[in-house]
Amino acid sequence: MSSALQSRRGHLPLRPLDVIAKKRDGQELSAVEIEYFIQEYTRGEIPDYQASAWLMAVIWRGMTRAETAALTNAMLLSGETLDLSEFPAMKVDKHSTGGVGDKTSLVLAPLVAAAGLIVPMISGRGLGHTGGTLDKLESIPGFNVNLSVEQFRRVLGACGCAMIGQTAEIAPADRKLYALRDVTATVESPYLICASIMSKKLAEGIDALILDVKTGSGAFMKREEDAAFLAELMVETGQLVGKNVIALITDMNQPLGAMVGNSLEVIEVLEVLRGAGPQDLRELCLELAGWMLHAGGISPTPEQGKSEAAKLIKSGAALEKFRQMVELQGGDSAAIDDVSRLPSSKHTTEVTAATGGFIAEIDCYAVGVASVILGGGRSKKEDSIDPSVGIVVHRKLGDAVTRSEPLCTIHYNSETQAGEAASLLQKSFKIAENAPAEKKSLVRRVIGARGKAGVSPVPANAMGEKK
Amino acid sequence: MSSALQSRRGHLPLRPLDVIAKKRDGQELSAVEIEYFIQEYTRGEIPDYQASAWLMAVIWRGMTRAETAALTNAMLLSGETLDLSEFPAMKVDKHSTGGVGDKTSLVLAPLVAAAGLIVPMISGRGLGHTGGTLDKLESIPGFNVNLSVEQFRRVLGACGCAMIGQTAEIAPADRKLYALRDVTATVESPYLICASIMSKKLAEGIDALILDVKTGSGAFMKREEDAAFLAELMVETGQLVGKNVIALITDMNQPLGAMVGNSLEVIEVLEVLRGAGPQDLRELCLELAGWMLHAGGISPTPEQGKSEAAKLIKSGAALEKFRQMVELQGGDSAAIDDVSRLPSSKHTTEVTAATGGFIAEIDCYAVGVASVILGGGRSKKEDSIDPSVGIVVHRKLGDAVTRSEPLCTIHYNSETQAGEAASLLQKSFKIAENAPAEKKSLVRRVIGARGKAGVSPVPANAMGEKK
Repeated sequence: MSSALQSRRGHLPLRPLDVIAKKRDGQELSAVEIEYFIQEYTRGEIPDYQASAWLMAVIWRGMTRAETAALTNAMLLSGETLDLSEFPAMKVDKHSTGGVGDKTSLVLAPLVAAAGLIVPMISGRGLGHTGGTLDKLESIPGFNVNLSVEQFRRVLGACGCAMIGQTAEIAPADRKLYALRDVTATVESPYLICASIMSKKLAEGIDALILDVKTGSGAFMKREEDAAFLAELMVETGQLVGKNVIALITDMNQPLGAMVGNSLEVIEVLEVLRGAGPQDLRELCLELAGWMLHAGGISPTPEQGKSEAAKLIKSGAALEKFRQMVELQGGDSAAIDDVSRLPSSKHTTEVTAATGGFIAEIDCYAVGVASVILGGGRSKKEDSIDPSVGIVVHRKLGDAVTRSEPLCTIHYNSETQAGEAASLLQKSFKIAENAPAEKKSLVRRVIGARGKAGVSPVPANAMGEKK
Repeated sequence: MSSALQSRRGHLPLRPLDVIAKKRDGQELSAVEIEYFIQEYTRGEIPDYQASAWLMAVIWRGMTRAETAALTNAMLLSGETLDLSEFPAMKVDKHSTGGVGDKTSLVLAPLVAAAGLIVPMISGRGLGHTGGTLDKLESIPGFNVNLSVEQFRRVLGACGCAMIGQTAEIAPADRKLYALRDVTATVESPYLICASIMSKKLAEGIDALILDVKTGSGAFMKREEDAAFLAELMVETGQLVGKNVIALITDMNQPLGAMVGNSLEVIEVLEVLRGAGPQDLRELCLELAGWMLHAGGISPTPEQGKSEAAKLIKSGAALEKFRQMVELQGGDSAAIDDVSRLPSSKHTTEVTAATGGFIAEIDCYAVGVASVILGGGRSKKEDSIDPSVGIVVHRKLGDAVTRSEPLCTIHYNSETQAGEAASLLQKSFKIAENAPAEKKSLVRRVIGARGKAGVSPVPANAMGEKK
């Protein structure tokens, strides 16, 4: 439309059509336009069919940093934000973009609370091949993740950490938009992912946020550069709204730890809280805790935070905090000392190595899918899950294996599902004659560590020098 | 999603989500996928929000020729197609992409029918700055454009031509998709425009179609290369489904003829049918008629078709055919001889030249908008129109003008509207000191004249040599 007709409506209010067309044409939307669109959509004034056309235009054209921040802010403002100022301690949270066997949240919330910080953790359920924190917690008999905001506040006050699911009050725009993205092929946009994650996390009333952005065969972002792009976007968006946000890009080319599945992962969490457990899981928990304690002002450097976290595990303070939280959220704390109280599968079977050699590759996505097949995850949102099933991985990347030795153990309740999972798992381990040349580092880089947007990547081994 | 989960649903039926994602990722959709999507959308099985995401992905990624043909075909098959095989003569139609003062359809239908061909013309209403054939016809008192298919057939049988609006039975997918495109900023795609036009035209049961694709300041496609692209797309799509389709790219940098407005345009049509009228309008009518007679097998060359058409005007046969059609469709045929029976505005006023010189430029879009402002067109689909108002243009591109001489006459019923239109018209004429170097040709090129897809552009002056 050329100028004549346009000027005739230059003084008229914003129209959804104009916002869609502007994004379609690759122009930058103003904060006012984005807020208008999100607000009216949340209120039901803009229909789904206009929102989905706009979402596809966003996938196409992307967003500037300012647009991403405006979108995050608009989604944040669509609902309530928690005011936790009654607690004098700093409020710190961690968010992971999702992986296989990633149970760090269950370790970190009590561990960081044991250091005196407040961890108001609002988590999600598993979807696709990844597990979900809420599903894992619910495998503890009685554990209630559906607390009201008042109950949430009470648990936080009593033990410093609480872990719940998203409430209806927080970022309703995200709930509505996410459901729409899910059915319109508009999920895969770093800008939309960033706004979805950050709007919910910022609504928690936190001071600092540590992001664990996964990359590799078991992550949503297979390529490290995609993970880094999303990480930078989230760090910058957080900083644009005045929050201290730091992202670690971490490896997800194999399951984290040995256990994949809900009650199995709780068992492994308890091992770590007792100072044991697999080395990679223990290491990542300490790294993330170190950054959380540093960001929360407890430790002058992340390295010192890491030492402090190790001490809190050694002293039993972290485990004690976990026990407190389980009790406060209605869970059976006796299960902490007697894991036979957790759901367990009827049967187990082993997947063995067809040949000897070294583990050269693990299709980590396939391991996640195998867990879904067993009933431990969801293919659709409506699916219910079986907390008792899962996979215990015995060989990790670089490990030596002899022919017929077990690669993993399947915990199952259905023969058919076990058969399907076994054949998938068998194919997902690639065994080579020689040991791989080098092991990839678990933490690939840290983004945002200087508290500035767009800092250059930091090698993991240099982390101690950064503040 | 990687292979493992995908293969688990490899045997499942098509899902709308996959069709959207495939287009989003820039892959070519199969005819089966397109037909599935259009069919299910038309039936209401695929919701608007999925269709609009898909439409935006089409705007983004475009379509191959095969996809465009499949979309056209799917939309065509969503409704009924007319079977006019009871008429032994060839069925030929013309379609214009819309312009200002473009009233050629009203001349062409009776003119080509007078040559013995069948012209089953299904037309649209004006939208935006352009006029619509149905609105013009309805300015003839009593003229009924809402015939049933049976009545349409009867009029065709009796006089060889009939002019009606789209019926509910023809291409319902287009009606539904067009309404959605209109509110989701997904109108401007040559592929979607092509499928929309061609699906409706091919449903008419025609043998050949002449397309008048407008370019210039008063056209939807300002740039000639965009017009040519759309023209080639439509020609190739028509040919892929076995129809003889030829497109003329014609100039729309100034109104066609002198009259803009509904009853005013009928008056000018009658002038042309009497062998008079403005030179450019007369010329374009004869060019288009020449191609229609050639495509319909009446004339061995378009040039001979043009001569034949001129004869049919001279003999009065075309005017007689028009009178017959008006009578058969319930119109007041006395208005043909006494145009005072047509609606006329209460007032007229002149827009005069502020300076002497030569007309160097006309903002043809603004002239169309001025007509809409007067009430002669629609800003929104729901608007009603005033058949009596309009603009008579006295000076065309290249014409000399003396200071204070009239540029155009405004026919109006409201002072406020007339004032707004006058100021717009005043600005839309650019007067230069010297005459423009050369006049642009009315017919820029002809596409598809050899009956093959993707023929190279043909200069207008070489048309006589092409068959």
